[in-house]
Amino acid sequence: MSRTTPAETPLGDAFHLYDTTLRDGAQGEGISYSAADKLAVARLLDELGVGFIEGGWPGALPKDTEFFARAAHELDLRHAVLVAFGATRRPDTKAADDPQVRALLDSGAPAVTLVAKSDRRHIERALRTDVDEACAMVSDTVALLVAEGRRVFLDAEHFFDGYAYDSDTSLRVLTAAMEAGADVAVLCDTNGGQLPLGLADTVRDVIDKTGFRVGIHCQDDTSCAVANSVAAVQAGATHVQCTANGYGERAGNADLFATIGNLVTKLDMPVIPQERMTELARVSHALAEIANIAPDTHQAYVGSSAFAHKAGLHASAIKVDPLLYNHIDPSVVGNDQRVLVTEMAGRASLELKGRELGVDLAGQPEVLTNVVGKVKDLEARGWSFEAADASLELLLRDELSQSTVDHTPFRLESYRVILDHRLDGEIVSEATVKVQVAEERVIATAEGNGPVHALDAALRKALRPHLSWLDSVELVDYKVRILTPGARHPVNGSDSQHGTDAVTRVLVVSADGGQEWTTVGVHGNIVEASWLALCDALAHKAMRLTQPVG
Amino acid sequence: MSRTTPAETPLGDAFHLYDTTLRDGAQGEGISYSAADKLAVARLLDELGVGFIEGGWPGALPKDTEFFARAAHELDLRHAVLVAFGATRRPDTKAADDPQVRALLDSGAPAVTLVAKSDRRHIERALRTDVDEACAMVSDTVALLVAEGRRVFLDAEHFFDGYAYDSDTSLRVLTAAMEAGADVAVLCDTNGGQLPLGLADTVRDVIDKTGFRVGIHCQDDTSCAVANSVAAVQAGATHVQCTANGYGERAGNADLFATIGNLVTKLDMPVIPQERMTELARVSHALAEIANIAPDTHQAYVGSSAFAHKAGLHASAIKVDPLLYNHIDPSVVGNDQRVLVTEMAGRASLELKGRELGVDLAGQPEVLTNVVGKVKDLEARGWSFEAADASLELLLRDELSQSTVDHTPFRLESYRVILDHRLDGEIVSEATVKVQVAEERVIATAEGNGPVHALDAALRKALRPHLSWLDSVELVDYKVRILTPGARHPVNGSDSQHGTDAVTRVLVVSADGGQEWTTVGVHGNIVEASWLALCDALAHKAMRLTQPVG
Repeated sequence: MSRTTPAETPLGDAFHLYDTTLRDGAQGEGISYSAADKLAVARLLDELGVGFIEGGWPGALPKDTEFFARAAHELDLRHAVLVAFGATRRPDTKAADDPQVRALLDSGAPAVTLVAKSDRRHIERALRTDVDEACAMVSDTVALLVAEGRRVFLDAEHFFDGYAYDSDTSLRVLTAAMEAGADVAVLCDTNGGQLPLGLADTVRDVIDKTGFRVGIHCQDDTSCAVANSVAAVQAGATHVQCTANGYGERAGNADLFATIGNLVTKLDMPVIPQERMTELARVSHALAEIANIAPDTHQAYVGSSAFAHKAGLHASAIKVDPLLYNHIDPSVVGNDQRVLVTEMAGRASLELKGRELGVDLAGQPEVLTNVVGKVKDLEARGWSFEAADASLELLLRDELSQSTVDHTPFRLESYRVILDHRLDGEIVSEATVKVQVAEERVIATAEGNGPVHALDAALRKALRPHLSWLDSVELVDYKVRILTPGARHPVNGSDSQHGTDAVTRVLVVSADGGQEWTTVGVHGNIVEASWLALCDALAHKAMRLTQPVG
Repeated sequence: MSRTTPAETPLGDAFHLYDTTLRDGAQGEGISYSAADKLAVARLLDELGVGFIEGGWPGALPKDTEFFARAAHELDLRHAVLVAFGATRRPDTKAADDPQVRALLDSGAPAVTLVAKSDRRHIERALRTDVDEACAMVSDTVALLVAEGRRVFLDAEHFFDGYAYDSDTSLRVLTAAMEAGADVAVLCDTNGGQLPLGLADTVRDVIDKTGFRVGIHCQDDTSCAVANSVAAVQAGATHVQCTANGYGERAGNADLFATIGNLVTKLDMPVIPQERMTELARVSHALAEIANIAPDTHQAYVGSSAFAHKAGLHASAIKVDPLLYNHIDPSVVGNDQRVLVTEMAGRASLELKGRELGVDLAGQPEVLTNVVGKVKDLEARGWSFEAADASLELLLRDELSQSTVDHTPFRLESYRVILDHRLDGEIVSEATVKVQVAEERVIATAEGNGPVHALDAALRKALRPHLSWLDSVELVDYKVRILTPGARHPVNGSDSQHGTDAVTRVLVVSADGGQEWTTVGVHGNIVEASWLALCDALAHKAMRLTQPVG
């Protein structure tokens, strides 16, 4: 049996940072982990320095049984203790005979979290038994697991609602577990209806009355899961259950990253090793990748917008001192401050943005003036650089070199796209491009599942023999926004009004394994707008290949 | 001048539900409202029963100046008071001479929120003045606005950080405002670094020391904005600033919908009219549409997953009593408990929706079953009828008449669209359609400023001689959303992955002078998706012409 206390974490066993992404997080809508995904998630969480990793419910879910079986051989945890989750024995049976309890032992996990009902209404109406038997189910199962050398935590389900309804029953369930040898009584806000001030009062009250070691598990149904978790810690809880990015059933759980951020930077509790703090943003995004869920750009601490400033008012103050408008130094959590270049911004923001992109405009006031003019002009025509750093960087560098360098690795002669909705109902998109590349004129034709895809395919076909790096560049996202300058302007409207003032803005996100970059194109014609963004995407890659590493 | 207190709200002026989506929300990355968008947002917020709507910063942002000018004629608020946001006079000037202060008066807004620095470090380092002058800037500007009949609120920027650093300065700034006639001292957690327990203590402390009416404005950088706002109210604040869906700079602001949900259902404070509570989910989604931001499915109270249950454990208990596993009855906020993959697919909601559209499905259970199946199937493939009533009505009526009537006034044989980016740089879009209309085969070709516009123009050219009403139908809006089923799936990507699972959803808004209607089209090819929505738009008009008036 492996150790049952976290290793190499600064607070040791005195404080438990407990992750349940693989069990409670996996209950979130849209999440479906394979056993291999679960192993990858566990490794990332362990690297971060989490103390406990709840891996799933062996015996109840086949994928979870498989995960524990593979974990025994394939998972070498440096920090964390692996935990199996399960229910107590059923009413009126013996714990030793319960196959689900047996599955918990068979999982080989050194620690077990048992879920038990602690709200009298649930005991009577869902479990259909009485409080005595509910307590016996808890104490029998805890005692058996402890006798087998497992460390046991009790998840007291619906604790807060139950405590408000009948505190005596709820405390009896906790007592049954703790007296049988459980280590932590975890108070669960299962329905997620709590608010921080009331929740903190209850946590304090329970600790005062029982002296038990208390943990907290919050759902986000009032949008307060992180706040509730932190308030519980302030009230004396020393074990906090979270999920990565707040994944979980309904509105989700307490986000692990915001909880760590708050405990470490606001309450000075080093709940993970100091040097791992800068990994927060990376691990959050990696876990989003595994869950196949787009990262929340506005997520606290780790979102790509978490330190992004748009207002000119802020940008000028940030030049004076970045900490004036950030609650922490973004690099502490591995994130970056970003200045969004928009109509709200001026010279100060563009200068800061240039610095961020490695383009020094500080000593060149006339270049800065030109860039500000150009950006304002383009934004008035519908361009937006706030999400398209790569296009902005090309613009800045072109302005700096006074356009003596053009990074686009080819020259367009012409393109044609043909879309056919045929008699038989089939729809075919075909594109032909004619380009000059490396002194050669190339013509290529390709099909795609839409006009832009066909154009991209034809361009790649034309350039592939000349650009060795082309296939490493992948388009990972594509966004379209139709900009209507005012209400009542038809976009693709009647003959009387051509909507010539309406434009389409396209954002293209590209990646080459190592980096990801976003470019923008704007035009009255959606295909041309997409073309412009595609060309910038390739130009940016070409530029990085020729640019001296700064 | 309009009234300065909210009308028709249950708590009247005793509690201010104050929305700043149009100012602070607009600072969120990825949000860019036109003046017309702003008017639409204000109307929705007013319908919901919000007390105050901050419209923007007139004089600083041209679009905001335009918004206030148009609001004076085009916005008829039933509940809310319109508020202009702006700064105090600059150091060492007169308030009456300050053009930005003048712009606040010129905006015509009956109430003004002035932002003022209340952290001594900001006063000295960003404002480069001393505390006396900072206070004079506040009191002069407040006094001028009050003398001109405006109701004034003070946004005390960086209040919590400032109060911790030098509480005397922060209180002096509040006092300067309140003694000059401001109504509410709004304590702003500008950097968003607060946690609920500490924030509540500070709010209580300020109220005890000053007796001022206190408001709260929270950013979400610790993921606690909603919790902090609610804690402030519990500590005595009677004015809460929020933004729709938490839009805002960096991690965003306190979400209006979760804040309303918490105040109403947890603290029994009727901050909006009781009968509007069921509009929360709808208004949240409509505001996401206007912002062109995908709704957060896991958003508390209003997200499509907010009452979605996946765990078998929960599902069986829910059969016993839904409230055992929901913190509130979802219908209270206009949401549904797991109406599965869709919002619409429930029989009851489709029946209700049909009634709303004048299609009676009550006595026809088998038709309802078919429609539910069809809608579920279409929604699984990316269709969304939430904003496309006209397409849904066609679907319901087609099902009801068992497809004996087809309302599309023509039959497509084929279309072809050619896009040419020519040698000379000119871009031409040309479309040819071949249709059957009124027993005749018609071929027509037309040009447009993009593929969809060309197609629309060609179709109109073909149909015009046969449909007298055609020219009365105008396309007034066109929206595109690329649906990526998961991160990392290229949409128009590399050859190896065609992103065949990605689809484009197009919404078309049409008008004919009297009515406005929205149709939807979904396809892997954007042009075909647009075509489907265009056809529905004309079919809906044709249907209304043949339908007996109900």
